[in-house]
Amino acid sequence: MKQDISGQLLAVLALLLVVGFASAAEPDPLPSWREGVAKSSIVAFVDRVTQEGSGDYVAPAQRIATFDNDGNLWAEQPMYFQLFFAIDRVKALAPQYPEWASQEPFASLLKGDVKAALAGGMPAINELIMTTHAGMTTDEFAVLVRDWIASARHPETGRLFTDMVYQPMLELLVYLRANDFKTFIVSGGGIEFMRPWTEAVYGIPPEQVAGSSVVTEFELRDGKPVLVRMPEIRFIDDKEGKPVGINSHIGRRPIFASGNSDGDLQMLQYTAAGQGPRFMLYLHHTDAEREWAYDRESHVGRLDKGLDEARERGWTVIDMQRDWKTVFPERRD
Amino acid sequence: MKQDISGQLLAVLALLLVVGFASAAEPDPLPSWREGVAKSSIVAFVDRVTQEGSGDYVAPAQRIATFDNDGNLWAEQPMYFQLFFAIDRVKALAPQYPEWASQEPFASLLKGDVKAALAGGMPAINELIMTTHAGMTTDEFAVLVRDWIASARHPETGRLFTDMVYQPMLELLVYLRANDFKTFIVSGGGIEFMRPWTEAVYGIPPEQVAGSSVVTEFELRDGKPVLVRMPEIRFIDDKEGKPVGINSHIGRRPIFASGNSDGDLQMLQYTAAGQGPRFMLYLHHTDAEREWAYDRESHVGRLDKGLDEARERGWTVIDMQRDWKTVFPERRD
Repeated sequence: MKQDISGQLLAVLALLLVVGFASAAEPDPLPSWREGVAKSSIVAFVDRVTQEGSGDYVAPAQRIATFDNDGNLWAEQPMYFQLFFAIDRVKALAPQYPEWASQEPFASLLKGDVKAALAGGMPAINELIMTTHAGMTTDEFAVLVRDWIASARHPETGRLFTDMVYQPMLELLVYLRANDFKTFIVSGGGIEFMRPWTEAVYGIPPEQVAGSSVVTEFELRDGKPVLVRMPEIRFIDDKEGKPVGINSHIGRRPIFASGNSDGDLQMLQYTAAGQGPRFMLYLHHTDAEREWAYDRESHVGRLDKGLDEARERGWTVIDMQRDWKTVFPERRD
Repeated sequence: MKQDISGQLLAVLALLLVVGFASAAEPDPLPSWREGVAKSSIVAFVDRVTQEGSGDYVAPAQRIATFDNDGNLWAEQPMYFQLFFAIDRVKALAPQYPEWASQEPFASLLKGDVKAALAGGMPAINELIMTTHAGMTTDEFAVLVRDWIASARHPETGRLFTDMVYQPMLELLVYLRANDFKTFIVSGGGIEFMRPWTEAVYGIPPEQVAGSSVVTEFELRDGKPVLVRMPEIRFIDDKEGKPVGINSHIGRRPIFASGNSDGDLQMLQYTAAGQGPRFMLYLHHTDAEREWAYDRESHVGRLDKGLDEARERGWTVIDMQRDWKTVFPERRD
């Protein structure tokens, strides 16, 4: 009897050791994700496509993953963060433009009434963007963005905007890259508004960022070549534009696409239509406590048709409140 | 005395061993390049920017190298190879378009008179390209290119077009990548004409290819998303367009740029204008025997202003006849 018990104890000890080693060897790659369908679906997909010899194996070169940015990698409430940048630019430029005191959308903005300023809808937003995002060289614009992003803070949380990124998504990016995925941003936001900081914040280099753009023109200024940002939209990388942008920029169809709004639906449809294993991921903003809760009725980041299609087609939907242990990373300041 | 001689012999042996090991450890990375200024300048530049701690050190992420394609990575005589593709498409499509028998530029092409067909200049070439490069999905176009490139041959050499690439440039691409450069194509050629084969031929993946493009539109066909190529130019990635294309596609300024014609001049100027070490490289077609000799007067790949500017500014110019031991790789068929 004694010997039997010893044997059993040894077996249990051995088992504990094995489990211990196994968990030591493979720490959870997604520690901010709660156990659940979203997390397990992601891990199962990555395991499937990286297992050599399996029928679902995908060669590393084909492991293209695309991520929307606003509301998907960082927050987008109460309005797109790029608009805060535009507003701060208006304030900085105002002394040079006294006429703005009586000219919309600038007049309202300068009085601090953003809502009234944006009441003019797309034409007002367009004027705001063109005034603040064009008329300088690409190098000058990059400096403006770098300076702003280093210090500007979210009006409600007081965090740096680069601290309003989602910790679970940062982990997902790292996890995918560790499995030889190439991660891209495909965003409706301005491509040159994102590039100065995406490498430091997301580990995504400028050449893997696609976004909306203005026309740029080559000029020799005092014999020195510069690219000048013109007040004319070149490309809107949203909705139908996302697959177009992916094709133009990447030239391969993603096997993994992640978004949070109807603006991402065509990207997910385009991804889903490829041959072989595919993963389509929607982030559903359900957490009024830790972030914001919004979907079908929101003016920013509306998720309506996309939510229906995701449910019909069995795409993975992250329920932020349920699936994420943590939303934002530790504050760095 | 005896001992002294032994000592000297030993020293000589040791020296020979060291030299032997050194050359065994570092085989020539550019074996098809003759010793000379072009080769030694390239190697010196790569050594400078990769030496950690040196003032000229460039971090790997910033080691962006851009290459023109036509006449730079593969040949371009007697005309751009993409035109051979267009002509072969006209022949394949002709049965569906009986009216082409009397309609230029198609009529001349179908009679085999390319010169007469192209006498119409850019409008004729534009019509030829639009007819043969638009009106299908991006996936369908990629299949057409893949099928053609696998079998089409150069009319003068009888080689596959993918065997009309320059062996020394293949070695240069490999050498740069071995030194953590990221290599890009920035070509006036069609982006979707190149992407199906650049990875296999040059080791350059689709997402690192920038080129000229047509407008593409997202469509759901029977519920399946496709991108349709429209008969409308979106972007010409040549001359002033090259820095624009680089900024749009890569979002960083290259530190190494390689071209062969005036169409590459702005790319080289833009590269030269960056801060820190830079390398600008022109390929001068001087070898009528093994390839073609042409420069200031050529209609294809004219190198005139660029040659002057290269000499004034001390850019490196490859003299094909003098600097390359081999031009083309071994035939694969």
